[in-house]
Amino acid sequence: MGDLVSALEGIVGEAHVSTGSAIAEDLTHDEAITAQPVVPAAVVRPGTTEEVAAIVAAAVEHGTPLTARGSGTGLSGACIPQPDGVLVSFERMAEILELDLDNHVARVQPGVTLAQLDEATAAVGLVYPVFPGENSASLGGNVATNAGGMRAVRYGVTRHQVLGLTAVLGTGETITTGGKFVKATSGYDLTQLIIGSEGTLALATEATLRLHPRLTHGATVLIPFPGLDEVAASIPRIVGSGLMPTILEYIDFITMSAITSAQNLELGVPQEIKDAALAYLVVVLENRNDERVEEDVHELAELATELGALDLYVLPTGSGAALIDAREKAFWTAKANGADDIIDMVVPRGSIPEYLGAVQAIGADTGSLVVGCGHAGDGNVHLSVFQPDVAVRKDVVGRILRAGAALGGAVSGEHGIGTEKKAYLAQIEDPAKLDLMRRIKTSFDPAGILNPGVIFD
Amino acid sequence: MGDLVSALEGIVGEAHVSTGSAIAEDLTHDEAITAQPVVPAAVVRPGTTEEVAAIVAAAVEHGTPLTARGSGTGLSGACIPQPDGVLVSFERMAEILELDLDNHVARVQPGVTLAQLDEATAAVGLVYPVFPGENSASLGGNVATNAGGMRAVRYGVTRHQVLGLTAVLGTGETITTGGKFVKATSGYDLTQLIIGSEGTLALATEATLRLHPRLTHGATVLIPFPGLDEVAASIPRIVGSGLMPTILEYIDFITMSAITSAQNLELGVPQEIKDAALAYLVVVLENRNDERVEEDVHELAELATELGALDLYVLPTGSGAALIDAREKAFWTAKANGADDIIDMVVPRGSIPEYLGAVQAIGADTGSLVVGCGHAGDGNVHLSVFQPDVAVRKDVVGRILRAGAALGGAVSGEHGIGTEKKAYLAQIEDPAKLDLMRRIKTSFDPAGILNPGVIFD
Repeated sequence: MGDLVSALEGIVGEAHVSTGSAIAEDLTHDEAITAQPVVPAAVVRPGTTEEVAAIVAAAVEHGTPLTARGSGTGLSGACIPQPDGVLVSFERMAEILELDLDNHVARVQPGVTLAQLDEATAAVGLVYPVFPGENSASLGGNVATNAGGMRAVRYGVTRHQVLGLTAVLGTGETITTGGKFVKATSGYDLTQLIIGSEGTLALATEATLRLHPRLTHGATVLIPFPGLDEVAASIPRIVGSGLMPTILEYIDFITMSAITSAQNLELGVPQEIKDAALAYLVVVLENRNDERVEEDVHELAELATELGALDLYVLPTGSGAALIDAREKAFWTAKANGADDIIDMVVPRGSIPEYLGAVQAIGADTGSLVVGCGHAGDGNVHLSVFQPDVAVRKDVVGRILRAGAALGGAVSGEHGIGTEKKAYLAQIEDPAKLDLMRRIKTSFDPAGILNPGVIFD
Repeated sequence: MGDLVSALEGIVGEAHVSTGSAIAEDLTHDEAITAQPVVPAAVVRPGTTEEVAAIVAAAVEHGTPLTARGSGTGLSGACIPQPDGVLVSFERMAEILELDLDNHVARVQPGVTLAQLDEATAAVGLVYPVFPGENSASLGGNVATNAGGMRAVRYGVTRHQVLGLTAVLGTGETITTGGKFVKATSGYDLTQLIIGSEGTLALATEATLRLHPRLTHGATVLIPFPGLDEVAASIPRIVGSGLMPTILEYIDFITMSAITSAQNLELGVPQEIKDAALAYLVVVLENRNDERVEEDVHELAELATELGALDLYVLPTGSGAALIDAREKAFWTAKANGADDIIDMVVPRGSIPEYLGAVQAIGADTGSLVVGCGHAGDGNVHLSVFQPDVAVRKDVVGRILRAGAALGGAVSGEHGIGTEKKAYLAQIEDPAKLDLMRRIKTSFDPAGILNPGVIFD
């Protein structure tokens, strides 16, 4: 390892390599509840694509695993390094390289945060529409996990915004994929393959991102329902109405109570409605002027009545934003309340009630509390599992994931598999597909040095 | 080959295998102008995924190339079989398996045509929004080429609508990818990798497609401009306005004249405007009611004036539809007029004027006529090249493609590489990426039997 550290120092300069006690504690973990911190053999902070390529070449030579890290806000352990490995931190590559107003495109380095990009795009009337709920997250991490969030129901997820990448393969070769365009059929779509690959195929050193016109007129609407069946039945009707909600979230009554009390949030829902509401929909409507927003809200209200809503509240701007903020912090609320694991399974949105019924049965059967909320329009269900016994908890999580898979779902909608869900994926996923993925990994990373042990063994 | 034919007859029944003179002429070619027909050794028409898997296994055993075919409307030669190969025709797998109204999803077999799907979705108020211009095209072919078309500026292309696939790998294994959801991060996105791979990675036997609310209120607006610079400068302004055009096409004056006279189409543009207009924008605006459409048209008109338009015509419903239809038939008009090749390069949309300037210079330099139109919002430029000398024509096409690549473009936006553009791709594309693609192909198709010689050698 001493040889490799010297090589790394030669590439990036001594100031940008850390070892031993000089490695900050923060770099040893992400935010996954179940994962253990790991101190890597070294941390290297490259400044350019060329340095990243040289780092990969040196790691290949030494057979040393590399783990890429952006802001470390991941929830599946995918940026936790190996004890004998090197952590590649992108903190120095954090520049917005270009805001191209003709093509509505941003070119960014992987360390750029969502907050940084949001500020820059707001200044020119555009928006990068992926809001996974943590604005300190980096674009590099977003690409690695195909980050989603609440606005996916309108805009799609990271996969739908990334038009191209510069990436260093596990061979040390640098490729550029895609470009400032939304479509191409010119060979395999390597951009899409790298997105969501959690650092196992390539290290992205630059991303070309699609920007959208920023809508500045909107309303946040809170709709209590007597139960989840009514919520689920509402989803296709609201989506099918053409109202194009920017946000369409369900929040169960326990989670609603937890996030509003955690944030001291008073939404003006009378007690008798609170008592009768087992689930809420939060709908954000945005349009090009206030008049259209008002018309859309009116239409949503008529639809909600027809769909069996208990009532409908158009929240004042301040508390609307506060509710969205509280929802984004739901993970932190769950963590603070002692959740033992989290799940972000995706199922066909029409299957949400059946899935949540199965989840509640599994919870009851094992004495576990399982509560949640989710991106209802996308079928992406976020669950917090409270079960202190590790063996029981693993059984509960496995059963909850298998229940979703039986409905045609996928293990993770946006958090990724990382290290923390890979045992479950191995149980659930078709072995032929996992073998194919391993062969694809080998085609990018023949030496097997890029984030080994993440997604699959 | 006799052994393999017997094996195929055993799999699908004698009635569904053809050889020799029993092979229909139509199955020997697609619509690529430059390609030559090829009669395969046999044509097989499977009826189920299981039969497709058995066909692949038999082909692996015999080392025989397989070429998948939908409706044969491709423009790059990708479904032209090999003389010693077997053509897998999906004409018997042409059923819409499900229209799921809760999840807004259709499940289709590969032989289903766009026309068939459009009729079925219209009946339930939904739309599959990919309209590549040829409604007899099959969904399987659309998946293979990542088909695009005029509505991509609003809805994206095939890649953005396909949520999952059932596909048979070159190993004979059958996998299912994705599902009835728009997002997942659960291993590599095999769906996206197969889309646009032109039959070289797997044979898709079923696709899960995203449907959208069908907008039934709209207007077609024709805007003549003095030149392409004004058109190009208008694109980001119109897209950035938030008007969300469903269609945003440019048509040069020669192509406009050709397609309107081919269809006997009178659009009511006075002669003095025609004389002054070197380029046209065609904008389709759709919204949820007529009032909003009218407001949007009014706003577009104000914007167009500001952007230097010569005038603006809101076309009556009949001639609006006829113009879109004529534009969709532009390829056939070019073919009928004797075009010697076509190009569908994609460039950053802001670079369209510079690109077209380079194209005209190449045309002038070589005595070739190059005219076109394109999906302006996507930077996808469709060119017809009139140059009867084959060697000169290849030089012209190569130079036009390199000019686009120099601007950050890609060889094909939606037609694909097939056999007809692969020599150009080989000249232009990074060899490291082509090598990576070859390794990826091997991971899907170790025996190299799936459409060999397509995309790359």
